[in-house]
Amino acid sequence: MSGGLLNSSRKISALLLDITGVLYNSGEGGGHVIPGSPQAVARLKEAGYKLKFCTNETQITRRALVEKLTRHGFTLTEEEVYSPAPACVQYLLENNLRPFLLIHPDARQDYVTVDTTNPNAVVLGDAAHEFTYDNMNIAFKILISQGSPGHLISLGRGRYYREGSELTLDVGPFTKALEFASGTEATVIGKPAPSFFKSALSDLRVPPEEAVMIGDDVLNDVGGAQGCGMAGVLVKTGKYRPEDERHPTVKPDRVVDNLAHAVDLLLNVS
Amino acid sequence: MSGGLLNSSRKISALLLDITGVLYNSGEGGGHVIPGSPQAVARLKEAGYKLKFCTNETQITRRALVEKLTRHGFTLTEEEVYSPAPACVQYLLENNLRPFLLIHPDARQDYVTVDTTNPNAVVLGDAAHEFTYDNMNIAFKILISQGSPGHLISLGRGRYYREGSELTLDVGPFTKALEFASGTEATVIGKPAPSFFKSALSDLRVPPEEAVMIGDDVLNDVGGAQGCGMAGVLVKTGKYRPEDERHPTVKPDRVVDNLAHAVDLLLNVS
Repeated sequence: MSGGLLNSSRKISALLLDITGVLYNSGEGGGHVIPGSPQAVARLKEAGYKLKFCTNETQITRRALVEKLTRHGFTLTEEEVYSPAPACVQYLLENNLRPFLLIHPDARQDYVTVDTTNPNAVVLGDAAHEFTYDNMNIAFKILISQGSPGHLISLGRGRYYREGSELTLDVGPFTKALEFASGTEATVIGKPAPSFFKSALSDLRVPPEEAVMIGDDVLNDVGGAQGCGMAGVLVKTGKYRPEDERHPTVKPDRVVDNLAHAVDLLLNVS
Repeated sequence: MSGGLLNSSRKISALLLDITGVLYNSGEGGGHVIPGSPQAVARLKEAGYKLKFCTNETQITRRALVEKLTRHGFTLTEEEVYSPAPACVQYLLENNLRPFLLIHPDARQDYVTVDTTNPNAVVLGDAAHEFTYDNMNIAFKILISQGSPGHLISLGRGRYYREGSELTLDVGPFTKALEFASGTEATVIGKPAPSFFKSALSDLRVPPEEAVMIGDDVLNDVGGAQGCGMAGVLVKTGKYRPEDERHPTVKPDRVVDNLAHAVDLLLNVS
């Protein structure tokens, strides 16, 4: 990657792009595209870069997400989207787990192959208004009835994201709540779990040193990618806040205004 | 305290008694008295022990709690009940804090002297069904809008308690959720905060080495009291579970069947 974005001696062949906060901001009526991002994605494809859209989005199915992004002017396929749901379904089946799905109603379709009777595990996604006291208690009782440790699976560990003009709570805080209540440590499927990034790179057949992750979450996107040997670039869109640049443990390889800016630097046109 | 309950060379002059899980179990219709507990309290009073009922109960006002316990056959006054609400009100007034009160509706009366307009702080109590996604988001936004650190006050830090035949989530998990989301550490008012136990003892004018705490929460009752130099006795009623006796950091000075058993041992009649 040249243009000063990263060490110019580094050959970059693939980009992992976060979706929410990088391509578009979620909100009423499907959200709002981030200016320049559809064109930036198209330019990357034209230039021959391999792409994976790595998201912790768990409020809708992968298919519905691709349809929404297509309406926003992006060109992408379901296969290019890497999200926690398929990995979670595989994990549940392999471990004979019957989950209580505390997830968004619009995401349930991704789990139709999973037995949810007589639950012996809990899956937490970005359930939003499904995070009621009653649902949290159901999850808690399953976890403490399974002995120690109960089986808690969290689709990501994000603290919050931007919804319209406001920050809103993500799945992470509710995972913390259930971990504390039940004395269980969650298995994270999604960013920042190293296995999530590594699987995405494996699909692309690209080693981490040839890949860059671009995201708006300093800890889960940038820190997670760096922990796997990738470069991590922070955009100033989405949930970005200036204090993210003074994060106590994560230092982005580069901070850019937005995805278009990152692509300008990468293609050396700025 | 003789009778083998504790080291017999120790002079005991005061008892701090937890309420929920020791005197009665909460549940539908005011809950159920724990057999023998009203008589046990009466015997302690007859024997001249100083008593304080130390509770993290924040679902009702102190007055309503005393009325409920009186209906259950206990003899006690409001002054004998030590609960977080009065200490919290004092803390809010001293620090010029205008809280968003995420507390149980039945406890609001305790906070009528507090200004809640344009909130610059969050108070979390055992809000139960008030722990909605929307209310958690309101609290979160106040905490992150106040700079770092935001002002989060938690009335206790309990993980769960017994409600009828079921365990149900207490305030602690929701405090953890907001701490994680906002990067704020909560100020705890109530057990297991040392200041809470010390204030109760100060009211009684009894040094910690002459006092015993009796509760059903191994961490918040027993551990908290021991941390202040008191003895801590665990009852096998309320939320007690056998694994509490193998707690990694807290070893009760004694485990008893119930409050009546503790009083038998104390009065040396067993």
